Parts: sequence; C-alpha cells; structure tokens
Amino acid sequence: MRILIIGAGGTIGKRLTPALQQRHEIITAGRNSGDVRVDVSSKESMVKLFEQVKNIDACICIAASGPLDNFQTLTEEQLLEDMKGKFFGQVNLVLIGQHFLNAGGSFTLTSGVFADQPGKGVTGGGVTSGALHSFVLSAAIELENGLRINCVSPGMAEDSTKDFGHLFPELKPVAMTRLVEAYTASVEGGKTGEIFRVY
Amino acid sequence: MRILIIGAGGTIGKRLTPALQQRHEIITAGRNSGDVRVDVSSKESMVKLFEQVKNIDACICIAASGPLDNFQTLTEEQLLEDMKGKFFGQVNLVLIGQHFLNAGGSFTLTSGVFADQPGKGVTGGGVTSGALHSFVLSAAIELENGLRINCVSPGMAEDSTKDFGHLFPELKPVAMTRLVEAYTASVEGGKTGEIFRVY
Repeated sequence: MRILIIGAGGTIGKRLTPALQQRHEIITAGRNSGDVRVDVSSKESMVKLFEQVKNIDACICIAASGPLDNFQTLTEEQLLEDMKGKFFGQVNLVLIGQHFLNAGGSFTLTSGVFADQPGKGVTGGGVTSGALHSFVLSAAIELENGLRINCVSPGMAEDSTKDFGHLFPELKPVAMTRLVEAYTASVEGGKTGEIFRVY
Repeated sequence: MRILIIGAGGTIGKRLTPALQQRHEIITAGRNSGDVRVDVSSKESMVKLFEQVKNIDACICIAASGPLDNFQTLTEEQLLEDMKGKFFGQVNLVLIGQHFLNAGGSFTLTSGVFADQPGKGVTGGGVTSGALHSFVLSAAIELENGLRINCVSPGMAEDSTKDFGHLFPELKPVAMTRLVEAYTASVEGGKTGEIFRVY
C-alpha cells in the first residue's frame, strides 16, 4: 500500500512509521518535518497536500492534543480554538481527502482517552475526541468508493510519560507496541467505524 | 425546586413542563415563547437570562436538532454552523450558568441518539451530540459548589414521528413518558456525569 502519515515525526509517528515501512510505501507529512509539509488547521494546505501526493491507499493522521484548560474561566472561543486542529483539522482531512483517496482506501484518525474518561483540565481534549468518535461513526456509513474510516483513541503513550505523565497520574502508560498495533490493524484490516481504544 | 426550562415550548418541553410543574416552580424560556426570551446561540442573551432569572436550582435545556447534511459536499463551515446552537449554545449555558446556579443545583442538557448510532445525513447531529457527551463527562468532574450535570440523549420522540419519522425509518418511536422520566431523574435524582440514553 501507499500510505500517507500526517504527524509522522511525533511521539507515536516515530514508532509507527518504521513499522509500516517494512511492508508499505510511506509518505510522511508534518508541519515542520516529513516528505511534504502540511498544516492540518488550514483547508488550503490540506487541498494542496492531496493535489501534490497522489495515489494514496491509506491516510493516517496522528494529531497532537491541545492545551490544558480551566473550566471556571473557560469560554466558547477557547473551546473552539482548542478544537480547531485536532477536530476540525481531521474532519477536513476526511471531507477533502474522500475525493482523492484510491477506492477501497482508508482513513485512520487519532482521538484520545478523555472522550470517555474525563480528566481535570482537559474539557477541550474531551469534546474534541468525543466529537471525533461520532464523526467517525457517521463517516463510516457515508463514505463512498469502499473507503473505510477508523480512529485510534490512545491513553498515555509510554514515550510521553516523561513529559506529560505527571499531569495525569490516573493514566497508566500504554506500551508503544499496542499503539502501533492499533494503527496497523486499522490500515491493514477490514474494519470501518471502529474506535480502537488503547488504554 | 425552582427550575428554568429552556425550550419549554418544544416537542419534549410541552410534555415535561406540566409534569414538573406539579412539584416545582417552573420558569420557561425560549426564543419565541416562555416567561423569558433567550437565544441559546448568543452568549450575551444567556448572560442576560441568568442576570434576569435568579435563584435557580435546576436548569434544563431541550435543544432542537439541526438540518440534514450531505457528507460528499459537507464543509467545516457548515459543520461548525450546525454545532453552534445545540453544542456551543449548551456549552455556554453551563460555562456561564455555573456562576449563577444555586449551590447543589443541576444542569440537564439534550443530545441525541446519533452520537452513538449514526444515521445518513446527520453527521452534524452526531458530532454535536458526541461532543456534548464528552463535555458532560468533563463538566461533571470540574463543576464546583456541588453542581451536577447530566444529559438526556433522545431517540425519535413519539410526538415527532409524524414530522420526522419518515427520515429515519430505522429509529423506533420513544414514548414521551420515558423522556419525561429521564429529565425528571436527572433533576430530582443525585446522578452527575450521566448520559440518559432514551431509545
């Protein structure tokens, strides 16, 4: 398969990319690194990406999480800003990408544990991921040309614990191999509308 | 209790309001009807509402659903527009209302079945409700002063089947009494962070 990985240079991407490279042709994309540059929060940048990188069988997006928030002072504007990249960005990837991917291709998005298990200070992360889950369920029954779509919902990735583990002591570290397996199952398996909860 | 019902004049509100009036003091609010006027899509209107109606123990919002959408031509802008009232409106209700409700008070929001069971042409409705569910989970652990928050997720309300039933033949009509019971349980019971799925 020819696989486009957006966010290949991130914590999960660094592990997933070499694993998939053993069997597939990989094109990496990122804001500051990769074979091609893309800003997932920009629709124009996304269209340019798909016009540039053709003949894609699978598109994986490993989007990072947003900032912490304070519920007592949180505003609609902050929440919307927080949803921009990870929710609306990944939505755009699918809404635009559906017209470019090869028939029978797949999208694999990234949400997060806070959709189902709330944490203090991560309302934005929770709603972003909850909205993504329902988007994936809807998209799975709407996509045409045999396109599939799934989502991986990671808990605290083991490689992130050094930087972020102290913020969420309630989350047990998730082995990187389990995350790599989930993305791989989404791409190489036949499932659609599946939320791979890895925590 | 002194209960504020936003959307009291709608399909569910018409049944819920008289049921709660038997035991509680009810203030009804709506865009075009009710004791007070409010536009849930306007933050200013919401602040005005809470400054006007004081001493509230429970706030119920029965928000209507948005328009149908076409996934092949759906845009980020349309999706955001679709989320404005029902998602961001109800979020604002809580973010603003948390500073006005009586201690130990409660919010009861309204989502919908498409968060968990997707339907054709309702991606906007699905993401709105999915985002609301995760928002309610987060808010439940963030709210202070003993405030509670729950959400009722209705399927096809029996009283709506004449108008909308033909659009979703896969949804069985839900008896209005079951919906009234769910909102009542949220307000009069002790639960928080609960999604009452009524379908």
